[in-house]
Amino acid sequence: MNGTFDMNANAALDTSIETDCLIIGAGPVGLFQVFELGLLEIRAQVVDSLVCVGGQCIEFYPDKPIYDIPSVPVCTGRELIANLQRQIEPFKPAFHLGQQVTVVRRREDRRFDVETSNRTRFITKTISIAGGVGAFAPRKLKVDGIDVFEGKQLFYRVSDPSLFTGKQLVICGGGDSALDCALSFVGKAESVVLVHRRDGFRAAPASVTRMRELCERYEMQFEIGQVTGFDARDDRLAALKITGGDGVTRRLPLDCLLVFFGLSPKLGPIAEWGLTIDYKQIVVDTARFETSEPGIFAVGDINCYPGKRKLILSGFHEATLAAIAAAQYVYPGKAIHTQYTSTSPELHKLLGAQATTTE
Amino acid sequence: MNGTFDMNANAALDTSIETDCLIIGAGPVGLFQVFELGLLEIRAQVVDSLVCVGGQCIEFYPDKPIYDIPSVPVCTGRELIANLQRQIEPFKPAFHLGQQVTVVRRREDRRFDVETSNRTRFITKTISIAGGVGAFAPRKLKVDGIDVFEGKQLFYRVSDPSLFTGKQLVICGGGDSALDCALSFVGKAESVVLVHRRDGFRAAPASVTRMRELCERYEMQFEIGQVTGFDARDDRLAALKITGGDGVTRRLPLDCLLVFFGLSPKLGPIAEWGLTIDYKQIVVDTARFETSEPGIFAVGDINCYPGKRKLILSGFHEATLAAIAAAQYVYPGKAIHTQYTSTSPELHKLLGAQATTTE
Repeated sequence: MNGTFDMNANAALDTSIETDCLIIGAGPVGLFQVFELGLLEIRAQVVDSLVCVGGQCIEFYPDKPIYDIPSVPVCTGRELIANLQRQIEPFKPAFHLGQQVTVVRRREDRRFDVETSNRTRFITKTISIAGGVGAFAPRKLKVDGIDVFEGKQLFYRVSDPSLFTGKQLVICGGGDSALDCALSFVGKAESVVLVHRRDGFRAAPASVTRMRELCERYEMQFEIGQVTGFDARDDRLAALKITGGDGVTRRLPLDCLLVFFGLSPKLGPIAEWGLTIDYKQIVVDTARFETSEPGIFAVGDINCYPGKRKLILSGFHEATLAAIAAAQYVYPGKAIHTQYTSTSPELHKLLGAQATTTE
Repeated sequence: MNGTFDMNANAALDTSIETDCLIIGAGPVGLFQVFELGLLEIRAQVVDSLVCVGGQCIEFYPDKPIYDIPSVPVCTGRELIANLQRQIEPFKPAFHLGQQVTVVRRREDRRFDVETSNRTRFITKTISIAGGVGAFAPRKLKVDGIDVFEGKQLFYRVSDPSLFTGKQLVICGGGDSALDCALSFVGKAESVVLVHRRDGFRAAPASVTRMRELCERYEMQFEIGQVTGFDARDDRLAALKITGGDGVTRRLPLDCLLVFFGLSPKLGPIAEWGLTIDYKQIVVDTARFETSEPGIFAVGDINCYPGKRKLILSGFHEATLAAIAAAQYVYPGKAIHTQYTSTSPELHKLLGAQATTTE
């Protein structure tokens, strides 16, 4: 957190904050969206449902090294976010954290009324949805009555690995999250059983190979099947019923169940807007990264277009072109020519940088 | 230059270097192309006509600050290149510098034969043109006989500003380069006259405003017109003939003439390939950044597509999707799923990074 930021800008309940662009999501791409808008003198306000800035970089991998930020050979999620916060300081963005957008309504003057769960209200010319994976919720295990154990014995993410040390773990799923989790607890948990509906994985081949090796050495176990029920004892989850492809149901005793079935979108009121959605992502064009609703842009992991890869560096590019397109709504009729931060005195002024006057 | 790089890989004249991807251009985007190819285990060789790595970052603004590299609040061109060189070290790219590609020929096996002006030969599965502005030459002043003064009194770029101190300068052009140059020499040159064919500029408004202020204070001069001839005396350029919109020709005495008419493409043998060209840029799609010739990609300032902006950060995104598309030619039939450098043990191995096994 940086002291120069207004981290929770206060809005009187009966007045709306007028802005040029409301950014939904304060992850790396949402932060860089502030920067690119700022270069074009477009004011931004940022809303995020998390209580701190940084999105999944801070939630999921604050201390993990990232190697593919261009020109940054290695940095942690936390460092990436700190650097982006420093970069956007000149534009003094206002953050509204710990609140979700609950209302988005087109006004007669073509701007949008936006309201959050804290009743912060905005009137904005444009919206950039930089919701990332944070706009998605884990897909739940659909077994009647099992949800009462959520947060006690049933988990959809690992926030504190020490909870699982010495425990009998069952991990469900066939993607990288499930495999990574299973591999990470071998030798730390009392036992690790991976359950997946088929003998094929969407995970990195090296992880699958490693998992099979560990199974051969009886250091973990892999079961093909689906969770179809459970046994409870004294209000505790005691065993899972796993039904295999052969129709046979087996019982697996356990202390904790970790489920990684991927994410499903949690677009909130945005979903009601009728934005074009494809494979649960918001469809955008690649010239403007605009959704099917004029003035609403989608950047980062939440959007999709031909060739889309969920990479932070792609989100940076997307936010840049979205900012240029947003300028059309903020400064109608103004031609936005490309200026370079290395040479433009105008940009230097905006950035508070010392002007350079010689070649 | 980094000692671990093979900065001028030697090729025996009668053997070809076999590679997966030949990258033309060792600027920031060409360097990052190496990185993204490397993550996919695609070997690359890099050719550049300049004698050192870095492209226009090193040629044009080694010491100028750049503010818009995402998560890097400020760096110079030189620092940007040094960081990219560090980032690609794990992939040990081979550079072939100070040579231009002279031959590109499709082979019967669908690969390409490539040859450079140093007679280095390659057989490559794919080509990524990351030529940037380096693949372009300055557009010349079209006045009969004036080219004999090039490099003596006629210049198309400022490599050594001290050459112009105390001189009578005439600067032609209406873009940022012309304006920046004119502004930078006011007070240093004996006189500065800007010549442009019309009273309208493609440059940053702030620079134009500044120019007009300086003209009002007689610190520089602006003439509307075109260079239509010159006077020479003792083998030296003595005066320019400037013809205005009114048809009247005036004479401007001068010591040095600096011309900034923009760049025109200098694609070399690539031009003969019949790649689709639009506004002198190579047309690519936005899913693969592939040209009209399968297996040849174009990334960075040399390409064009709807919404294109000539920004380094866009080149990084383009090179990433081009690498994924190139994999189709290098590993036919293999599905390339997105792996994350923060979590993938396979990528950690490629990067020589310490494997992280816990969440």
